[in-house]
Amino acid sequence: MIHKAYQKRLGRCTSLMKRTGLDVLLLSKPANMFYLTGDGRLCAYTMITQEGKVALGVPSTDLEDVSRLAHFDHITGFEDEVGMIHSIAHYFEHFGLQEGTLGLEYTFLTQSMMGMFTHPHAKPAGVQVKDCTHILSELRMVKEAEEIDCIRKAATVAVVGMAAAVKALRPSLTESQVAAEAEYAMRQAGAEEFWRSYVSSGPRTNIAHGLPTARELQAGDLVMIDIHPIVSGYSADICRTVCVGGPTEEQQQAFDLYLRAQQSTIQTAKAGVGVADLEHHLHQVIRDGGHGEHLFGPPIHGVGIEFEEAPLPPGHAFFHGEKAPPPLPANVVIAVGNCGLYTGPWGVRVEDTVLIGEAEPTIFTEYPRRLVVSDR
Amino acid sequence: MIHKAYQKRLGRCTSLMKRTGLDVLLLSKPANMFYLTGDGRLCAYTMITQEGKVALGVPSTDLEDVSRLAHFDHITGFEDEVGMIHSIAHYFEHFGLQEGTLGLEYTFLTQSMMGMFTHPHAKPAGVQVKDCTHILSELRMVKEAEEIDCIRKAATVAVVGMAAAVKALRPSLTESQVAAEAEYAMRQAGAEEFWRSYVSSGPRTNIAHGLPTARELQAGDLVMIDIHPIVSGYSADICRTVCVGGPTEEQQQAFDLYLRAQQSTIQTAKAGVGVADLEHHLHQVIRDGGHGEHLFGPPIHGVGIEFEEAPLPPGHAFFHGEKAPPPLPANVVIAVGNCGLYTGPWGVRVEDTVLIGEAEPTIFTEYPRRLVVSDR
Repeated sequence: MIHKAYQKRLGRCTSLMKRTGLDVLLLSKPANMFYLTGDGRLCAYTMITQEGKVALGVPSTDLEDVSRLAHFDHITGFEDEVGMIHSIAHYFEHFGLQEGTLGLEYTFLTQSMMGMFTHPHAKPAGVQVKDCTHILSELRMVKEAEEIDCIRKAATVAVVGMAAAVKALRPSLTESQVAAEAEYAMRQAGAEEFWRSYVSSGPRTNIAHGLPTARELQAGDLVMIDIHPIVSGYSADICRTVCVGGPTEEQQQAFDLYLRAQQSTIQTAKAGVGVADLEHHLHQVIRDGGHGEHLFGPPIHGVGIEFEEAPLPPGHAFFHGEKAPPPLPANVVIAVGNCGLYTGPWGVRVEDTVLIGEAEPTIFTEYPRRLVVSDR
Repeated sequence: MIHKAYQKRLGRCTSLMKRTGLDVLLLSKPANMFYLTGDGRLCAYTMITQEGKVALGVPSTDLEDVSRLAHFDHITGFEDEVGMIHSIAHYFEHFGLQEGTLGLEYTFLTQSMMGMFTHPHAKPAGVQVKDCTHILSELRMVKEAEEIDCIRKAATVAVVGMAAAVKALRPSLTESQVAAEAEYAMRQAGAEEFWRSYVSSGPRTNIAHGLPTARELQAGDLVMIDIHPIVSGYSADICRTVCVGGPTEEQQQAFDLYLRAQQSTIQTAKAGVGVADLEHHLHQVIRDGGHGEHLFGPPIHGVGIEFEEAPLPPGHAFFHGEKAPPPLPANVVIAVGNCGLYTGPWGVRVEDTVLIGEAEPTIFTEYPRRLVVSDR
């Protein structure tokens, strides 16, 4: 017996499958499996038929744990990769699927995993394969009330983590130690996990993906902190840039401009607006402020089970195997401020997790947006 | 000018390329780029020609940072995915490569990233593609003296992390909070990063990949802690199982058996022995102890830039796009104890990072191997 909430998601899933000509899905991305069954883990798979039947394959060690957590019709344990492949073949046979179209997650599966799932001992020769990324993105885009609650909780934890990191900032601390403060506080505050933290300082605030290093903070450094806790399976996304000491006038001006762009973009975010419109708005404010050539990266993305998920901006979406998103409906959660203003010697960025409403946005990550946090 | 140490690695790389018929490599896996150029990061790529020319493409924001860290002949910055694709096409043209064979990382590239790198605007139509995973694995398998030093340092940090986690264990602490203690201590001790920590407790010690949850420890629980810090780009791997209170006789016996299997396997690990031999030895001791049906997962893997890398056991290797490893040469670093003994209600596991020597192994992760750590 599959719980009502999951039955509903499955119903929407099978409708989309019918509409896009997919007879069966073979999922292995934890976020997608979690959404449709209540459990997502590595080295497991979920098959979903157009009739809404759910069949799981998990490591034999995990049979009991998954049975307790997931909603499904069939489950089987396997000992190794060969067993996994054979169990997939068995389900194809059980469901009478010897031809038709199989949906696979092209944005998640490596080339070698593709080889495994389409191995002649797994997939019947008559079954064709097609990308199903867009179906899962569409399914997961608008959040249910319970999902929004989880993201709100994750945002609260993100704020606790940010406060701990900012409070600890001082010269000679390493970027890694700054990350340590945020992560420790987030786990204490109820995060079961977090996505990789980004902490960059000084000249490293200019790079696109500033994973922490052993670099020691120096007086006057800008520090960019970007963290993403997971609470009950849902994520939040917050970034702040803070100065260790007093910023230069140029830094303060760039920060003020970025913040104005980010906050006014959030204020325009409501049901019916497109991701491309939001991107354009943010870019335009920064261009008008004279920093147009210092922009890099897409400013908007979705937040949910993953801290970075659909909707993505159209250009970015294409290369990530996604479709361009429709005008945003209410109850989509997005992050605004994913791109930075990169001047060369340093960069600034402020990012918040925001719920799209019918009339107005709700910011979930309320933490001071100031280059100099005096009360830390 | 490329530094001598990297010239040497490039020389070995181009020899392997010639031997396996690859005219050019297009790498994007950070670990592989780090090995061959000194810098590895997401959203960047490295092209390597059979003549040993190295061309990098990086986000334009990262040009200066990469220039400072990496060894290369050419570098270019791009603004977005379209720019990335065009820069790849430019390098193909620059190197006069309009036909031949291109090596891509099939075990790293998702299906959609494959689509990007083989896009008609990136790759000339006359260039064929082939997996190059095995080349990079072969290159990285035997460690240089400097690499061994780094892994040894990472192992020291891993021990600090394990000690902090074990010391903190007490009923009502969540698995996530146990992970917090290990991770915080590792960052304080000099880790710039770490791979995802595994902490499982009670019935969850029986699952294959026990990521931490909000489950609270209970008196009498077994707790399995598996951590992997990164120091100067290199990793270590340690796992311990500890009881919060007094274990049952059955638990103690299973633990003693596993430990005996793991330690005697380490003692047989020296140059000339195969990964399959080590796996067989470990399995046999556990089978002889009456727990043969409780084994799961490959017990041995390599450790280096990644905490889990080649050599992998033959069966596992095949499905991960790797070749079966040769008899182990000296100066390969492996983890012994990657599989667990899973009885159903609970599991036990002990894992160490070990340097293969000509005559004998050296264990890098020296931390007590006891189910009851009395002095914690």
